[in-house]
Amino acid sequence: MKIGIIGAGRIGKVHGESAMRYVKDAEIKAIADPFITDATIEWANKMGIKNIYKDYKKIIEDKEIEIVLICSSTDTHSQISIEAINAGKHVFCEKPIDHDVNKIKEVMAALEKNKVKYQVGFQRRFDKNFRAAKEAVLAGKIGDLNVLKITSRDPGPPPVSYIKVSGGIFLDMTIHDFDMVRYMSGSEVEEVYAIGAVLVDEEIGKAGDIDTAVISLKLKNGALAVIDNCRRATYGYDQRVEVFGSKGQVAVGNQLENTTVISNGTGVTAEKPQHFFLERYMEAYAAEITSFIEAVKTDRETEVTVVEGLKPVLIGLAAKRSMVEGRPVKIAEIEKEYGL
Amino acid sequence: MKIGIIGAGRIGKVHGESAMRYVKDAEIKAIADPFITDATIEWANKMGIKNIYKDYKKIIEDKEIEIVLICSSTDTHSQISIEAINAGKHVFCEKPIDHDVNKIKEVMAALEKNKVKYQVGFQRRFDKNFRAAKEAVLAGKIGDLNVLKITSRDPGPPPVSYIKVSGGIFLDMTIHDFDMVRYMSGSEVEEVYAIGAVLVDEEIGKAGDIDTAVISLKLKNGALAVIDNCRRATYGYDQRVEVFGSKGQVAVGNQLENTTVISNGTGVTAEKPQHFFLERYMEAYAAEITSFIEAVKTDRETEVTVVEGLKPVLIGLAAKRSMVEGRPVKIAEIEKEYGL
Amino acid sequence: MKIGIIGAGRIGKVHGESAMRYVKDAEIKAIADPFITDATIEWANKMGIKNIYKDYKKIIEDKEIEIVLICSSTDTHSQISIEAINAGKHVFCEKPIDHDVNKIKEVMAALEKNKVKYQVGFQRRFDKNFRAAKEAVLAGKIGDLNVLKITSRDPGPPPVSYIKVSGGIFLDMTIHDFDMVRYMSGSEVEEVYAIGAVLVDEEIGKAGDIDTAVISLKLKNGALAVIDNCRRATYGYDQRVEVFGSKGQVAVGNQLENTTVISNGTGVTAEKPQHFFLERYMEAYAAEITSFIEAVKTDRETEVTVVEGLKPVLIGLAAKRSMVEGRPVKIAEIEKEYGL
Amino acid sequence: MKIGIIGAGRIGKVHGESAMRYVKDAEIKAIADPFITDATIEWANKMGIKNIYKDYKKIIEDKEIEIVLICSSTDTHSQISIEAINAGKHVFCEKPIDHDVNKIKEVMAALEKNKVKYQVGFQRRFDKNFRAAKEAVLAGKIGDLNVLKITSRDPGPPPVSYIKVSGGIFLDMTIHDFDMVRYMSGSEVEEVYAIGAVLVDEEIGKAGDIDTAVISLKLKNGALAVIDNCRRATYGYDQRVEVFGSKGQVAVGNQLENTTVISNGTGVTAEKPQHFFLERYMEAYAAEITSFIEAVKTDRETEVTVVEGLKPVLIGLAAKRSMVEGRPVKIAEIEKEYGL
Repeated sequence: MKIGIIGAGRIGKVHGESAMRYVKDAEIKAIADPFITDATIEWANKMGIKNIYKDYKKIIEDKEIEIVLICSSTDTHSQISIEAINAGKHVFCEKPIDHDVNKIKEVMAALEKNKVKYQVGFQRRFDKNFRAAKEAVLAGKIGDLNVLKITSRDPGPPPVSYIKVSGGIFLDMTIHDFDMVRYMSGSEVEEVYAIGAVLVDEEIGKAGDIDTAVISLKLKNGALAVIDNCRRATYGYDQRVEVFGSKGQVAVGNQLENTTVISNGTGVTAEKPQHFFLERYMEAYAAEITSFIEAVKTDRETEVTVVEGLKPVLIGLAAKRSMVEGRPVKIAEIEKEYGL
Repeated sequence: MKIGIIGAGRIGKVHGESAMRYVKDAEIKAIADPFITDATIEWANKMGIKNIYKDYKKIIEDKEIEIVLICSSTDTHSQISIEAINAGKHVFCEKPIDHDVNKIKEVMAALEKNKVKYQVGFQRRFDKNFRAAKEAVLAGKIGDLNVLKITSRDPGPPPVSYIKVSGGIFLDMTIHDFDMVRYMSGSEVEEVYAIGAVLVDEEIGKAGDIDTAVISLKLKNGALAVIDNCRRATYGYDQRVEVFGSKGQVAVGNQLENTTVISNGTGVTAEKPQHFFLERYMEAYAAEITSFIEAVKTDRETEVTVVEGLKPVLIGLAAKRSMVEGRPVKIAEIEKEYGL
Repeated sequence: MKIGIIGAGRIGKVHGESAMRYVKDAEIKAIADPFITDATIEWANKMGIKNIYKDYKKIIEDKEIEIVLICSSTDTHSQISIEAINAGKHVFCEKPIDHDVNKIKEVMAALEKNKVKYQVGFQRRFDKNFRAAKEAVLAGKIGDLNVLKITSRDPGPPPVSYIKVSGGIFLDMTIHDFDMVRYMSGSEVEEVYAIGAVLVDEEIGKAGDIDTAVISLKLKNGALAVIDNCRRATYGYDQRVEVFGSKGQVAVGNQLENTTVISNGTGVTAEKPQHFFLERYMEAYAAEITSFIEAVKTDRETEVTVVEGLKPVLIGLAAKRSMVEGRPVKIAEIEKEYGL
Repeated sequence: MKIGIIGAGRIGKVHGESAMRYVKDAEIKAIADPFITDATIEWANKMGIKNIYKDYKKIIEDKEIEIVLICSSTDTHSQISIEAINAGKHVFCEKPIDHDVNKIKEVMAALEKNKVKYQVGFQRRFDKNFRAAKEAVLAGKIGDLNVLKITSRDPGPPPVSYIKVSGGIFLDMTIHDFDMVRYMSGSEVEEVYAIGAVLVDEEIGKAGDIDTAVISLKLKNGALAVIDNCRRATYGYDQRVEVFGSKGQVAVGNQLENTTVISNGTGVTAEKPQHFFLERYMEAYAAEITSFIEAVKTDRETEVTVVEGLKPVLIGLAAKRSMVEGRPVKIAEIEKEYGL
């Protein structure tokens, strides 16, 4: 089972290592990146990857390669997806597929014509903590869902240059939370209302984005949800979920750096949450790649299909409009505009 | 210092006991209630209260009584407040003063004419946990406020008969949270958006109310806030606050029944939160009455003035309108309508 | 029901206030203390106590007084107990009854001749947390006891002058933990082995005592127990118990000052344990006095009889000998020496 | 850097995988086990290990192999260690080196003659939690050590057949805790006193061992320590440490299965501790092998030398004698008997 990785950044390397480590018979045949660094070459050598390309098309064209992991910059995801799908490859694509719904529709069209697997990189669905919460919900432990609460805060903001091309906080950061709302509730979103502020860095505001947000959502199953985001939490990467229902609540807390607790005159101090998303979700990244390759091998549906990749983008666009226009926005309004 | 209590229900008795226990020289001279029960008579005897009236006016007319605690049903608060104020008495009035802003304005007018103290019963401000959080905020420990989150859930819904006269969830239950937003943020509220659902009891819906709500708020200081409410939490009275800012977060957790933790094959189980509001806020009730009488004695401003009592009502009315009309509502819109 | 309090220190006042507050018909008729301070007089006036004596015998001789609370210095406990018992009074006596087992035997002899109630002041048995743990044990939640662990640390050492007359750490401080071992296990102690060190204050060592100890115990029911003590914990009054058995464990944690948790670059900091024994056990002190007076009223056995007061002293003496002689000491060895 | 693994059980495989995964240039050249199973062959194939032997001597004799990992049964550790050392190989040896101190002395003698690295498998020293606690201690955060407490309980007892050859609880299970006492305190042990009971399984008693123990220790630095062990904890693998000192305490808690917390009418239930030692210490196993190979590569001393492997055996023997003879036993007494 030969794999090609497009994009040799952090996440591309993480996926490559996971595939090597956890998937029997997996072989990374090639990696492609327009900017190949010495560090990448060294990493590829260590991993036994023999082909390093600047042009990703060499991977697309390689008949031996069955699986393509798209880890390049967001603006290339949909185009490469389409090319890879049309070349008959199974595709794992980092989130989001695209900010432009029409481009996602093109990916969907390509998938209809080619019988290949496609998985979008919402790795949080594979996190053991969120998964255990989901299982508790499915096992009926909280009864019917009443209120779903998600807190999602980054340890610090990305460079403003990134924010300018990221599609904004709702499509870049909250998109994971929109996916989590759908995953955890098992329901579609009906309507969204978003408020936001620039409280972390004025440059983010100048770039046309916000850095702090509260988004309330009505779900189709009648339950309510709320997400709060911030680009900066001094205490680390804050990733919590509370699923509250008629029989009780299941909450997912942060994973701490370690289990030490120091007691002294200041108080009783536990460790901070793990600081970095790669550290926090390392196991989840491995699990999603393993699950994807397993889907290819056993010819079953992937756990995060192209539709699962589309939906959070629609919610993100609705949130964006809600904040700009200061009104609640129905997802149907966005869907209608794109003929969905 | 002679005190008269109007309303001999649970909260009237709690305040009477607090005054006796914690305030030097306090004497409950009389208690009035239209429905005097044997239990009330027994309680009054034990407390050494010599005068038990059906008609509260006997308390108003008693020249010896300096302080009146209004613990009667909500619809009588403003009328009795006005009478007591005009009779020159210092008044402690349970929340809310009234659902009708015009009535509150009449109380304010009475207070302008009479130099007496007036305190509204927002007891959570006197809870040692919320107070410690507020002190942490004032001490700069979280820096500038970014996001304030309040979870407030009752262990079970009140009788539907109560809901019909309570003014609805926003004026009866969330009003405490609106007060907490102002207390903890030190800021006024600019705009509110509320979504709600009937998920606990259909009868509540038939009575024209909701039982589950998420309210997002823009604050005048630029920060964001969100409240989530539910009339039923199977695990008890859920009262939590998170104040998140540029330097970190201070969170207030629930007070548990006791500190035992049982570990077995099921998991590691701590006790539930204290179940009942009287139990949870017993110390706070004592502290608010003590603070009020102290304000009278030392002739200082009370900690929860009539204006502090008015503001959450305005926010509650805005929330109600927001939910009905499906749009964000500015507090100024409500204020303008009442000439405030 | 008229009460006399002998000893007007902190604990005497606490018991007086509890009796007044929580016991119907209780009246503190007199208080006696060889050193009456202005503060005591002021306190007595506020409490409506009309008789303040230097000589406790006036309380013993007062025919109207039915109940005597002995809160004087430890060296007077047994003598006053005997006098009060012989005068037909019900006696609540602070722990320990005496360091001298023969004196306790004299109290027991007096009790055999006079049909009065006698309760020893092991207030921890009345703490809601330890009581909940005991109830979990009795309900079979941990199965058969395997290992009982008690951590008991003071926030800071008492004055060395106190240590010189206190009977040493085992009779003054650990005695509470010996009582807790018996309470929580429902078993007698078979054998004890103690190691100790002077790590807090050299003056304590010069006074012939230790300030840090680990005591391991074999229980008659076959289970094991261990206590660790220290006279100083910088983070407050550390009072924890773990009861581990065949089906699981119930642990009692510390009561914290409040429920706030601050997260920042340093970590996630909860409050310290309550710092002072009066604060930590305030409710328990009230509960023990209420229980005692209830026992008098209903003519039932007290919850901490003279024998319950004797046993921990025997264990304490065994622990002392164990440490001095560097060997495990059976309780039977001590008992035999005293003809028990 | 070619490696040979002797013993193809669980831990041998874990070490093999760690070496492959985390150490650059590591190659497992051969694995030896008297009982080669199909599962082992499959595992070896997957790992690319080309040589599978029944006789470990083929590894000893292989000149190309520089490093030997001894993961065979305890009774073979010292003999194979000596052979491997004399063949000039660097040796990682699972704990304990031997139950017989004289055999360990022979290993020490072999090491004196051959300049090779030797590391004993006390993996807990490499656990991130214990290591963070140790760093806090070294950083002075708890001041001078007063009391060190270790709770170490297995989820369930091993087969009685294992217990018969394991050397007993003190040499098989507590030996890790004795090592942890030395690691965390930075001090040697002066004297030990052990009490034990058979509370889990009578068969363990019939095999001449106990299953529940409390061991108190005097340390040479003047501090006290206590360990409690049990072969069965229904809630999982209980591995906790408290290091209490003049400035405060650092505690290491359990690692839980995941971070979910369920609140309902029963209470607030967090997950159990990770259940199995391999799961709990997986990262630590990787870290110890990495550290060992690093020591070989950079020619530095290993982090757990043969002397570190000897000391806990001496303490274990003292504990065993203490329990049998019912008296505290000095480590010097054991050392003297072995001419140490």
